[in-house]
Amino acid sequence: MEVFEAISQRRSIRRFKEEDVDESLIEKIVQSGVWAPSAGNLQSWELILVKNPQTREKLSEAAYLRDFIAKAPLVMVPCVNLIVSGGVYGTRGVKLYSLQDVSCAIENMLLMAHALGLGTCWVGAFDEQLVIDLLEIPDNIRPVALIPLGYPDEKPYPPPRRDLDDFIHFERY
Amino acid sequence: MEVFEAISQRRSIRRFKEEDVDESLIEKIVQSGVWAPSAGNLQSWELILVKNPQTREKLSEAAYLRDFIAKAPLVMVPCVNLIVSGGVYGTRGVKLYSLQDVSCAIENMLLMAHALGLGTCWVGAFDEQLVIDLLEIPDNIRPVALIPLGYPDEKPYPPPRRDLDDFIHFERY
Repeated sequence: MEVFEAISQRRSIRRFKEEDVDESLIEKIVQSGVWAPSAGNLQSWELILVKNPQTREKLSEAAYLRDFIAKAPLVMVPCVNLIVSGGVYGTRGVKLYSLQDVSCAIENMLLMAHALGLGTCWVGAFDEQLVIDLLEIPDNIRPVALIPLGYPDEKPYPPPRRDLDDFIHFERY
Repeated sequence: MEVFEAISQRRSIRRFKEEDVDESLIEKIVQSGVWAPSAGNLQSWELILVKNPQTREKLSEAAYLRDFIAKAPLVMVPCVNLIVSGGVYGTRGVKLYSLQDVSCAIENMLLMAHALGLGTCWVGAFDEQLVIDLLEIPDNIRPVALIPLGYPDEKPYPPPRRDLDDFIHFERY
């Protein structure tokens, strides 16, 4: 699939078929994440892949009962490593670069998933401590999103986007 | 260009030709940013496009003398709107979602630029206050990156990436 087609036609998917996702596709998606740019090429991210149905159910509860999370065959939990990003770049590394880096990796994964005929949804609203406890995430690692992945069982309309004129500023703000 | 090709072959470009970039290409790149996902579809971002050579020179100084910024024909300065993201989602909106959202928009723009034969470099290390003063950025807006854009005058080798086994965790961390 062409780049602009993937970028413009990717949608958030909240209904999934029960069909499992082949390991080779998951590997291709994760590999796309790896190629994201990162500050100083630190790649200060970690990724937890959850298939266990009980764990997915609990992730759904941690995300304020969004039950489509539990219904996807796989949930990806991208995390940042605060020691790696902070060790080199201090506070700016922890509070800015590491979040930017993992976000690029996630966006790459969403685009690749769409290009492979799969659907995802970026879930940002969840109780971090519940997820940390559930997935036994150590102190220096922070989960930053829950990304259910599976074959889409809906075809949502594109949500509206701002006009370019509305947010582009020339030479100064 | 295919999605995985763009994702895996995009490099940070730090040498640019003097050749200008056509408006239609810039528009296509910015349009790619617009299609990024955002929390609640808030799209709480702004984009300053800088062509003026004196301003580019000062941006380069604000980025601790990285002179390739001044040498690119265009510098994009993506920003987040803290009132929009904070108004709906509070602190989590300001400190997490808005940064994730704008980062996805930036990654889309880097990929689209590469697919169009253009080069970019994500510069995160800069003095925010200097950039705010220079570009007359108001209180509630935060610049989060400097992205020089132009035709590449180098073909860097791919920097090493972590092995998948190094950062993937199954079922729990």
